[in-house]
Parts: sequence; C-alpha cells; structure tokens
Amino acid sequence: MIRSATQGEIMRHVRGYGRSVSRAQLTEHLGVSRSKVSLEVGQLVGAGLLVEDGLGESEGGRRSSLLRIPRGAGLVAAVDLGATSADVAVTTLGGEVIGRAGEPADVREGPNRVLGRAVELLSGLLDEQGANAREVIAVGVGLPGPVEYASGRPTVPPLMPGWDSYPIHEAFAGWYDAPVFVDNDVNIMALGEHRGGLGRDVENMLFVKIGTGIGCGIVVDGRLYRGSQGSAGDIGHVRAAPDGPVCACGNVACLEAMAAAPAIVREAERIAGLERGGALAALREAGELDLGSVLKAATYGDAGAVGIVRRSGRLIGETLATLVSVLNPSLVVIGGGVAYAASHTLLAEVRSAVYHRSLPLATRNLPIVLSELGEDAGVVGASAMAAEGVLEVHA
Amino acid sequence: MIRSATQGEIMRHVRGYGRSVSRAQLTEHLGVSRSKVSLEVGQLVGAGLLVEDGLGESEGGRRSSLLRIPRGAGLVAAVDLGATSADVAVTTLGGEVIGRAGEPADVREGPNRVLGRAVELLSGLLDEQGANAREVIAVGVGLPGPVEYASGRPTVPPLMPGWDSYPIHEAFAGWYDAPVFVDNDVNIMALGEHRGGLGRDVENMLFVKIGTGIGCGIVVDGRLYRGSQGSAGDIGHVRAAPDGPVCACGNVACLEAMAAAPAIVREAERIAGLERGGALAALREAGELDLGSVLKAATYGDAGAVGIVRRSGRLIGETLATLVSVLNPSLVVIGGGVAYAASHTLLAEVRSAVYHRSLPLATRNLPIVLSELGEDAGVVGASAMAAEGVLEVHA
Repeated sequence: MIRSATQGEIMRHVRGYGRSVSRAQLTEHLGVSRSKVSLEVGQLVGAGLLVEDGLGESEGGRRSSLLRIPRGAGLVAAVDLGATSADVAVTTLGGEVIGRAGEPADVREGPNRVLGRAVELLSGLLDEQGANAREVIAVGVGLPGPVEYASGRPTVPPLMPGWDSYPIHEAFAGWYDAPVFVDNDVNIMALGEHRGGLGRDVENMLFVKIGTGIGCGIVVDGRLYRGSQGSAGDIGHVRAAPDGPVCACGNVACLEAMAAAPAIVREAERIAGLERGGALAALREAGELDLGSVLKAATYGDAGAVGIVRRSGRLIGETLATLVSVLNPSLVVIGGGVAYAASHTLLAEVRSAVYHRSLPLATRNLPIVLSELGEDAGVVGASAMAAEGVLEVHA
Repeated sequence: MIRSATQGEIMRHVRGYGRSVSRAQLTEHLGVSRSKVSLEVGQLVGAGLLVEDGLGESEGGRRSSLLRIPRGAGLVAAVDLGATSADVAVTTLGGEVIGRAGEPADVREGPNRVLGRAVELLSGLLDEQGANAREVIAVGVGLPGPVEYASGRPTVPPLMPGWDSYPIHEAFAGWYDAPVFVDNDVNIMALGEHRGGLGRDVENMLFVKIGTGIGCGIVVDGRLYRGSQGSAGDIGHVRAAPDGPVCACGNVACLEAMAAAPAIVREAERIAGLERGGALAALREAGELDLGSVLKAATYGDAGAVGIVRRSGRLIGETLATLVSVLNPSLVVIGGGVAYAASHTLLAEVRSAVYHRSLPLATRNLPIVLSELGEDAGVVGASAMAAEGVLEVHA
C-alpha cells in the first residue's frame, strides 16, 4: 500500500494532525524538498490514500490545497478488552470513528469466546455502515494483561486462563485480510490520549489507568515506550507500603492489591462493619455495596467512602511521584473506571501526593488531569496503533 | 564540517562501532543505496573526517576497504565534575582517549574556579600531546546537579552556590572555538557506559550512580532520556521509607539522605558508638572513621560495616525495583565511588531487592552489574555527548 518510508511518514503526519494538511506543512515537517513531497503525495493521491480537500489559509502567496485521508483509503477494526468489558470500534484509516459498540465481558472466559464475540460486534458495526470486511486494512487489539508486542502474544497474564501465548491474530484471520497489532490495554489508552486527546502537543506523557487493575502507559519523545520485554509501565505490582495484603502475583502490598477496585470494595466492606450510620453501612444492609455505590457515596461526601477513595489516591500518588521524578513527563493523564466515577476526590489526592513527594523541578508545570476521551481512549488508541503499524509496512 | 544528515549518521555509526567499518556495513546500517554511501563517504574522506584503514573480511566477493576516524578529524575536550572531584580527558573525535587527568575539587568553590582549573588541566594534556587548542572541535561537560540540556545551564543545583543558570560555555569560549555540550554527571556516565562500555549492544539501560548523591541515567531505544525539564532519572529524592532523616532538599526520607555516602558515614558513627569491639569502634577511636575506611571494613567482613552497606543496598534496590518494573530495561549498570569501593556486598543486596520486588517478566534476563569503565565512565560519556552533538550540526 505504502511504497516508501517517506510515504508512510506523510500518511502518519496527516493522520496525527487531525485536520487537513497542506503540502507546505508536509515539506516543513519532513525536512525534504517540495518537489519530493509533491511526487510522493501525487502517488498517494493516485493510490486513493489521500484526497484533495479544498484550499488552506493563504501563506503569503497563493493558497495551497489541503490533503486528507478519505474513508476509501481503508477501515481499521479496533478492539479494547478490559477485565470485565469488551469495546470495539470501526474507524477510518484517518482515525474518524464511524461505529462503536461495547458490552460487559469476562476475560476469564478465554480467548476463543471473548475474541469471537469482539468479531461479532465488529461485523455488526460494519453491516450498519454498509461496509465490507474486505475494507478492513488493519486490526488493533488491547488486552488487559502483559503482551509481547513484537509477537502480539499475551505473556503469562495473571487471572487470564487460556490466554498465555495465545495467537491473537489467528482469531481475526478468517475474517479480515489485514495485519493484527496487539498491546496491553493501558498502552493503547495512553496512545489514544496522545494521538487523539489531551496529549497531542506533548512529547513525554504518562497515562495511569485505575480500574480493576492499575497500570501506566509511557509516552517518550512522542512514542509509546514498551521496554525490553514489553512490560514497561506495570506499576500495579510496585510495593506501595511496608506491609499489606497478599497480591494475586504472590508479593505483598502491591499498589494494585491496595488501591484498585477490589481493594476499594474490600475496604468498604470492612468499614461498613465498623461504622454506625454512614452510607456504607446502609448500602451493606441493603445488599448494594459494590464499587459503583461506594464511589457514588464518595461523590456525595460520605466520610467513610471519601476516606477510602482518598487512601487509594494517596497510595497511587505516592507511587506516581517516583515515576514523575524519574521520567519528568510534561503531562499526566488519569483514566479508568474508578477514576471516571470518583474523579474529583481521587484526583485531588493523587495531585497532592505527587506535588508533595516529587522534585519541584519535575512538577513545576505538570498538569495531572482526567482523560478527555474517557471510555473511548482504548479504541481510539487501538485504531492509532493499527493505522500507524500498517503505514510502516512498505516495500 | 558535516554537510548532510546522512554524513552525520555515517560518522556517528563509525564512532559508535568501535572498530573500522566497511562501506557494506554502512550501506546496511543506513538503509540507503551503495552509491549514495560511496558518495557521502568520499566527501568525508576528502574533508579528512574518515580515512581508509586496510581491507576487511571477505564477504563472498572481493574484500572491502575499511574506514575509521583519524586523529586529524579533530579532538574533543571532556570534563567530568563530581561534587568532590574534577576529571578531564582529551579524546579523538572517534572516541580514543589520548590524555587523562584528574584531581580532588570542591564544586562549592564555584564555577569560575572549578571550570578554570578544568581548562588548565586540559591545556596540560594538550601540551603533553603536542596538540593545539585549535584542534578541539567540541567540548563535553558533566556537572554534579540538574542541567537544562537545551541551554546547557545548571538549574537550581542543591549545594552548588554560584552555579544556578551559570553560562558554562562561556568558561571555555576564550580557549576553544568549539561548541560546548553540558549535562549532569549521571547522564554522561550512562552515555559513556552505553557507547563505550557494557551497554553497547543494549537498547534500554539504567545507570545508577552511588556516591555523595544517588542518581540514575536512563537510556531508552539507544538514546539518553532527559525528560521534559531535563530532570529525568533523579531517584535521589524519591522517598525510600515511611520516615527518615530530613534531606537537603527539604523532604524527609529521601533515598539519597538514607543511602548515599554521607548517610553511610553517619550510620557508621552511630554504630561505632553502640558496639563493643568491631572495626567501626576501633576506627573511631583512631580518628579514622570515614567513607573509605567503612567500606573497606565491609569488604573485610566486619559485621557492623557489612550491615550498613547492606542497608544502603537494600534501600537502593527497593527504589530500583520500581524503576525496573516501570521501565523494563535489559541492563542495569551500577557505578559511583561507593559502588566501586563496596562492590560485592552492595551489589548482592541491590540485586536481591530488585529480583524480589520487581515483576518476574521484567527481571527474567536482567543483569545488574558493576560499571566496566569505572571512574572513566564520565569522561568517556562527556566525549561521546560532545562528539555526537557536533556531528549533528550540519548545513
């Protein structure tokens, strides 16, 4: 599809820019001659990967025509699997979401069932749009566990029976004639927020997901940093206190075991048994004590629930302080189900711990903000990963 | 000097390879045509930046001639300032050390005096080699505190009066007509170990310096990662325990305040006052209790001294475990005065804490080893930074 490294870079730049791009901008961005850009763009227009899109702002001389990626350039199938949810989207190669679906899913049911259901959801979306599976030119998949990016296979995922080394791409092979790119869910969320959300203009960024687990996606110099085995960013199993509960990984006092969703519910159960009055005791009485009700009670200001959320925020913030000191990012984005439901109380405590514990130089201009894309960050990122991946493949 | 980006890349590759390089290797490395490589190499040979250096191994056909960087291509002045030492070296552009000097120095005496003395040491080395200051084409400087890399100025260095925002390059302006590149000492040590030591074949590496302070240099995808304000890797002020002594930075229980050289001496004083018999009490009696004697007592197996070194190693290892989980490097190199003097006991404890506390995936094949370059890592890295910097400057 792409015939040179320069063509891939042109396509990625147009995709990332979010609006139509002029040849002059491409010339400046690529640092090559105007004639070279015209030649390569001409081939891309000829191949249907770019189309002319009106005239841009005048830049002194005549107005230059703009370029964008048309829907006909191809579609991308994006899959974001969480521990308890499956989200899918169909996007254009340019990144526009043209269909979106999601439903509860239990990753422990195994790859056949969960991936099979994702394909069904995608087929439904393609049908709705009158699109054909042959139009899909790349598939991006996020999984709720460690992934060896080069091979696209999960590696020893905790609590995911049947997924270890499972060849994810084969689940899509019968459906799409397209390469499949796989990464963990936190990395694709970070990529989504960087390419299509708050991180657009930022070189170095952290994305922290707080949900059933806790993880961190790291963007370094504009690119996702995966580490040597692809496990970079796994902050869930950093020790968060001198002592604490035993984690599923076998260590004690892991951040995840002390501050993620299950720990919040467990702590709420404990406090509901101790306190008199208070929302938590009442919820337990009514048999309605779960993550959602605890986080809602916190937003209403119930002291017991607020205390639990603050404790999580403080523990996460203390670990994050180390990352901020060590990586010196210019933006921290917080996402994940717990963060969306308990945003203000949780974020205030995370910020407080980070600003208090990190070096002043590292936090001088450091915004710590809630994800802009929210539940869409995963599919937006899966689409970006797949589109950028397929645009790197050339003769 | 360098007339295109490709020429800069050729020169950096020849420099980094460490041995003479054939045109065929360059063609493969650059991914451009053989004729383009020949053209660019011809210009570099013409400019005296490369010379032919005999014939390489046969590769099926005729043997190809090899290329290396001659001394005549230019010299690099390398300066590595620690809190208590000044080391300098003169190297070729190709990285060969042709002169080396060092002496105790107190960074608190201020930039005029300390940098002036470094220039004197460099002049002595140039004289010894019969070289002229006009041959120096780049200067690389490492400082024992945070540096804003883009401007080359120190930023609010703790315990370095007079250095804040000092224009380091001006100290060299009257001596060399050459660009000056400045970074913190830990970053240049990491670069030295990556370019000329154990890290040569590794993409992602951490270099931990344990001396008067504690810091970490981070190599990501083969390049030094400096972060948004240049403070990346500053692990010295990560909190290492729930409570502890007040640090010079104002926080409590910073890793540096608990595990670096001053903390080791302080702890030795405390234990010498408590124990009966033992080397530490005897050393204090003799008025000889200092960092060197404590670390030596540890290598002789004195229980009190071993306990102190182990405590430092454990605290450093626990913080390092977080970095290893988060960054998933494929090599960790340990350097700095404390590490060189107490290597085995300290490293054993660091390893134990990292392997125990990090994710199995991140430590599966992770060597944690002592620096190969030792006290030379700084000047080797300063030379590499300056050479690579000047080779990026082109028309």
